[in-house]
Amino acid sequence: MKAVLVIGDGMADRPIRELGWKTPLEAARKPSLNQIAKTGICGIMDPISPGLPPGSDTATLALLGYDASKVYSGRGALEAIGSGVKVLPSDVAFRCNFATVDRNLVVLDRRAGRIVNEDATKLAGSLQKIKLKKLLGAKFFFENTIQHRAVLVIRKRGLSTAVSDSDPGEVGEKVSDVKPLDDSSGAKLTAEIVNELMRGFHKILKDHPVNEERAKRGVPPANMILCRGAGTVPNIKPLSQVYGISAACIGATPYVRGVCKAAGMKLIDVKGATGTPQTDFMAKAKATIQALKTNEFVLLHVKATDVASHDGNIEQKIELIEKIDHVLGYVLSNIDLDATHLSVTADHTTSSITRNHEGDPVPIAITGPCVRRDDVEEFDERACAKGGLNRIRGMDLMPILMNLIGKAKKFGA
Amino acid sequence: MKAVLVIGDGMADRPIRELGWKTPLEAARKPSLNQIAKTGICGIMDPISPGLPPGSDTATLALLGYDASKVYSGRGALEAIGSGVKVLPSDVAFRCNFATVDRNLVVLDRRAGRIVNEDATKLAGSLQKIKLKKLLGAKFFFENTIQHRAVLVIRKRGLSTAVSDSDPGEVGEKVSDVKPLDDSSGAKLTAEIVNELMRGFHKILKDHPVNEERAKRGVPPANMILCRGAGTVPNIKPLSQVYGISAACIGATPYVRGVCKAAGMKLIDVKGATGTPQTDFMAKAKATIQALKTNEFVLLHVKATDVASHDGNIEQKIELIEKIDHVLGYVLSNIDLDATHLSVTADHTTSSITRNHEGDPVPIAITGPCVRRDDVEEFDERACAKGGLNRIRGMDLMPILMNLIGKAKKFGA
Repeated sequence: MKAVLVIGDGMADRPIRELGWKTPLEAARKPSLNQIAKTGICGIMDPISPGLPPGSDTATLALLGYDASKVYSGRGALEAIGSGVKVLPSDVAFRCNFATVDRNLVVLDRRAGRIVNEDATKLAGSLQKIKLKKLLGAKFFFENTIQHRAVLVIRKRGLSTAVSDSDPGEVGEKVSDVKPLDDSSGAKLTAEIVNELMRGFHKILKDHPVNEERAKRGVPPANMILCRGAGTVPNIKPLSQVYGISAACIGATPYVRGVCKAAGMKLIDVKGATGTPQTDFMAKAKATIQALKTNEFVLLHVKATDVASHDGNIEQKIELIEKIDHVLGYVLSNIDLDATHLSVTADHTTSSITRNHEGDPVPIAITGPCVRRDDVEEFDERACAKGGLNRIRGMDLMPILMNLIGKAKKFGA
Repeated sequence: MKAVLVIGDGMADRPIRELGWKTPLEAARKPSLNQIAKTGICGIMDPISPGLPPGSDTATLALLGYDASKVYSGRGALEAIGSGVKVLPSDVAFRCNFATVDRNLVVLDRRAGRIVNEDATKLAGSLQKIKLKKLLGAKFFFENTIQHRAVLVIRKRGLSTAVSDSDPGEVGEKVSDVKPLDDSSGAKLTAEIVNELMRGFHKILKDHPVNEERAKRGVPPANMILCRGAGTVPNIKPLSQVYGISAACIGATPYVRGVCKAAGMKLIDVKGATGTPQTDFMAKAKATIQALKTNEFVLLHVKATDVASHDGNIEQKIELIEKIDHVLGYVLSNIDLDATHLSVTADHTTSSITRNHEGDPVPIAITGPCVRRDDVEEFDERACAKGGLNRIRGMDLMPILMNLIGKAKKFGA
């Protein structure tokens, strides 16, 4: 028996006036999602706890069965390992942006004109080579990922994640000094190292040939690195150890890949999977079926619905839900429904009105041979609330799925 | 966006034979409560946890979002701060009664004939002045509140709440010595001080001119102080810090005011609000609308329904529910429903048959622009059980409300 979990990032929403107070899920045409609801058991789920708006990182940890409130240790390291950068347990990692600043270090563009990968790779190469005297013996690894995004890993004993961001978060603000957030010597040490690096990086970048060449092309120079989200690798047991399963992840988003990597899952690269609304949905669907041949659990994550919600693009969100529905149609017709449990949900509610993650519960449906089928006929926030699962928490989902496929361990005798 | 929470104390009940197995809520005429259910999202709520009968103090802590099982530290200090008495973190406070005892210290009347405030104030004034040698350097503050009720605060380092009550709880029983409930030196010290005070108080009271005068009037003398519910101020973060909101409380009951005070809420005094079935309901309704102008969260607490339940007065309970319904009618027509979430619930079930707090869940409804409206049409214990909130816990309510009004903080990135 195998299990597939499909997560539409930020797919759940609130009722919207322009949709006649329907949610995008309620408004979308979604025969396959409804098929899963109709043949399965449904419910609503608080990703972390009622009312609490989750990040996608904490929510994904929870949906894989971990207690995010205990194991979450910041976004930086998840992003780093999801991007293929090695992070040791004592390392502290940051999410970084290539940015454009003026001579007073005021941020002009937080993404350096969404710098292309080629330029970013050249700049990152130069940054990785610099030697700084004041690094107090620390090693560092700086790597660009997609466009303006990059990760920075600092390696030295005694570091701490209790440091502030250098990224001011807003255009027009000055780059911040990284400050220790508690009285520990580790926080002081970490802040000192990062500040020294940021200064060193700026010195290299401001006169870098790549930026001179960018100036000629009329695009903003990538003359500063902004860092945020200091984190360590979460200390969690891999799924293979918790449930004795082989597991794989299909998703392009670095932090989702990071969580899955931390959970010991195989990361499957899919050509054309980009984490954007233009991602190749069918390639991901096919990869899911493929992965299911050699894994007992496959997570398929689709980021695009969240992107549309953050943009407040309701129509696009509905279209993307309909694309996810097509993916599920393909999955439904290509799995062995006598030997597979298929579950679909969202990692959190993203309101297309507030354009933020919200703490409302998400709908959840599970179909497969062992579920107690209920009478819910549609997959959406309100229909599922009447389902046989009632209201569960994100961290309950994995034990429920593992129970259905016979992988849950008995407690007691 | 703002939020109002209306709590009908002990408003939930069990089915009652004389009502054709309806509950008082089911039997009452309540168009406004139903309006909230019809336009909102409903559910049932375990104030603390399933089956556990809560006190009104622990339930109110939970409904304000605190984990009562961790932060509750006895009733005495809540009652004291709710009555306007200052209590420091290291103080131990008791709820007290003026009582009538015979010469063998057997309790004849636990409320000294429900002594009038004027007499109690004079007696309390005399008690506050006494000097006792054996108080071991402790200071004390004794203050009467309403009728026979009073509070006693003891101030000295190293006190403990692990002491028994002097109040035997029953007429015909002898006043108890206060005993340490564990082996700590603090418990021994506290018991010693309280016993010394009780003896000292009795000595003053038994020959007090006020009591001589009461004897002439043929009313029982208030010749003893009974104390119970040793407690400290709960160590909780104010709501302003947890959610960044300004919050106010409208309620006359001392322990509810005490919980709200501990949560950093403004206490609003309403002329005519008494905590009894004769309270001025409309004055409280108007005060709620007024408070909403300068606060983001307003709690309106109505004690009377609980009083009727403890008296087993089913008809009065129904009448009082209908009065709460009028209050809600006024609130509904005077708030901006596009920018306010209005929630109504009970702090616990009080059975009009057992006349006790019971551990059954309570109905909850929330209306406002962001809720996922469900198809529940009536506000009562059974109708709400079919609602879109399903079953939540008391401590989930505040995060849910704060999420709806955009005051919940994201966990993760």
